[in-house]
This record gives sequence, structure tokens and C-alpha cells, in this order.
Amino acid sequence: MKRVLVDMDEVIADPMNAMIEWYKEKYDREIDYSKMEGSWAFGFPEEHQPMIRTRLNEPGFFRHLPVMKDSQRVLAEINKKYELFIVSAATEFPNSLKDKIEWLEDNFSFISWKQVVLCGDKRLCVGDYLIDDHTKNLMHFTGKPYLYNAAHNQTVQGYDRLNNWEEVAQALL
Amino acid sequence: MKRVLVDMDEVIADPMNAMIEWYKEKYDREIDYSKMEGSWAFGFPEEHQPMIRTRLNEPGFFRHLPVMKDSQRVLAEINKKYELFIVSAATEFPNSLKDKIEWLEDNFSFISWKQVVLCGDKRLCVGDYLIDDHTKNLMHFTGKPYLYNAAHNQTVQGYDRLNNWEEVAQALL
Repeated sequence: MKRVLVDMDEVIADPMNAMIEWYKEKYDREIDYSKMEGSWAFGFPEEHQPMIRTRLNEPGFFRHLPVMKDSQRVLAEINKKYELFIVSAATEFPNSLKDKIEWLEDNFSFISWKQVVLCGDKRLCVGDYLIDDHTKNLMHFTGKPYLYNAAHNQTVQGYDRLNNWEEVAQALL
Repeated sequence: MKRVLVDMDEVIADPMNAMIEWYKEKYDREIDYSKMEGSWAFGFPEEHQPMIRTRLNEPGFFRHLPVMKDSQRVLAEINKKYELFIVSAATEFPNSLKDKIEWLEDNFSFISWKQVVLCGDKRLCVGDYLIDDHTKNLMHFTGKPYLYNAAHNQTVQGYDRLNNWEEVAQALL
């Protein structure tokens, strides 16, 4: 059985839009999507970027994120056909760890705790396919890397890009 | 630079002795070390084993564990000579996750969050050496596995056994 590794943030969970919604409600300021290359945090007004980082480590932020459209249905099928692991670079934000496990239990109940990896560096993890929004994770992967489309990776070249979960299904199912 | 993976519980941290101390204080009952093969939890009176499991997922249990003798000094040296990762099968106990990160920060401050992996299944992780007390983790490892001596693995054969951190230093430094 081939092994598929799937990232969480910006792939199955949507922290960017959760942050934008929270920020707009709090400050009523606009977000500049054209500045997001490399990190969506760059799209927020510069003086508020440290606060965005603080918010990422607040207990509860990762607990109630929106789920990416169609990801539940497609991952349920992938879970039958492949050995599936969710791999999230999360140890930078210790308060996110339990939230992430509970969010997965809520939204992807077919994924067991045995299939979850919370780490700081994905170079350690091997598999046949990796779906991720960051080139820093894809570039060292020894299997087939797929770039999941995100606001912060619009200019990235050199990877097969999957724009939505329908395209993931077409690639893997 | 070669990569060393090191387990946490029973290798650098001592949950077994923390649990025994807590249990004896609470119940004043004896522990049967001869029944621990496979899991140290088996050494506790049978009627209390479910409670031992509950205690493992209580917030704070993994936060203040004793540190294994000499592990700080030897790992600091290993960290200079190798690419070091701490790999802990921890996602079964969501309340342990943040505790484990903070325990590492307190006791192994030279290890960054980038060097930590909290997972459910270590088959995913590759490296040149793995030091672990469980054969279920060692048996799939593609590098050189070392069995770290523990009360629950006394009859295990077929692995090079490291009895303490002095022996780890002799093997790797």
C-alpha cells in the first residue's frame, strides 16, 4: 500500500481565512493579497504582523478552523486506498498541538491518532506522495511532491500544482 | 551529518518511576516488576490499570517527569556531532503534547522545536540511528536500531541493548 502524507494548514484546514475574518472584525482594515508571497502573514499591515504570530499560538485558534472544501470526502477515499498520514509542522506553536488533534477528531473522524505527525521539520518523514503548500517541505521529499495551491505560493514553479480537492482526487484516486 | 532519532519516555524521561511514586503515595500498594514485560503498566494491580491510563492523559503528568541520568550531557554532545531529533509516540495522549514540548525546553534547552516529532507511528521517520525502548518502533527502522534498556523489555533479544546514557555515549560518540 502506497503512503500519502498530507499537510494540515492551507491544505485541509484554513487558518488564513480564519485569521482574516478575526482581524477584519477587530480592526476593520484591509488585507493586501499581493504581498502574501512566502507567507500569508505578510498580507496583514506590517505593524500588526507580530500580533498575527501571537494569535497563532493562542489556545483555541486551531481548534475551530474552517475545513477546506471537499477535503473530507476525498481524504476518506484516499484513506481506503493508501496508507494516509497527516503531517503538520506544528511544534513551533505548542498551544496548537492539542487543538489540532481535536480538530482532526471532529472533522476527520476516520483518521486515527496513529496517522498524525506533529513536527518541526518534515525532512524526517518518508512516503510516496506529499501534498503540501510549502516548497520548504516539498523540496526534500523523496517521493512525489504536489504543491497545494495557496495565496502565498502563487509564483512557485517546478511542482505539479493541485488547485482544489477535486484535483487531488484526480491525481490520486 | 548522520541523523540520530531518540525516543522520550523511558529513554530521556522517566514516566514509569513518576507513576510508581504517585501510585504508592495514593494507594500504598506494591508494584510487581516481574509482570512488566511488554508494558510497565502491567506491573500495577490489575484493577488499577485503567486508572494508570487515565493518569497518562492528565494535563501536567508529562510536564514534570524526572530526567534520565546523564541524558542531558550525552545528548548535548550528540547534538553537536549529529542531526538530532526527538521522536515521541504521543498523539494517543493529546494532553501530553504541550507538556512534552515544555519539558524539553526546560531540560534540553539546546534542542529546538524544529528537532521534535510527536507522532503515532514511527515507521514514517527515517534516520541513521534510533534509540528506543520499544521493538514496535525499532523493527521497521531502516537505519541502525538500539534498544534502550527498560523494565518492560527485559526479555527482548535481537537488538544491541544500551543500558544507560554512558553506553549511548560509547556507541555514538
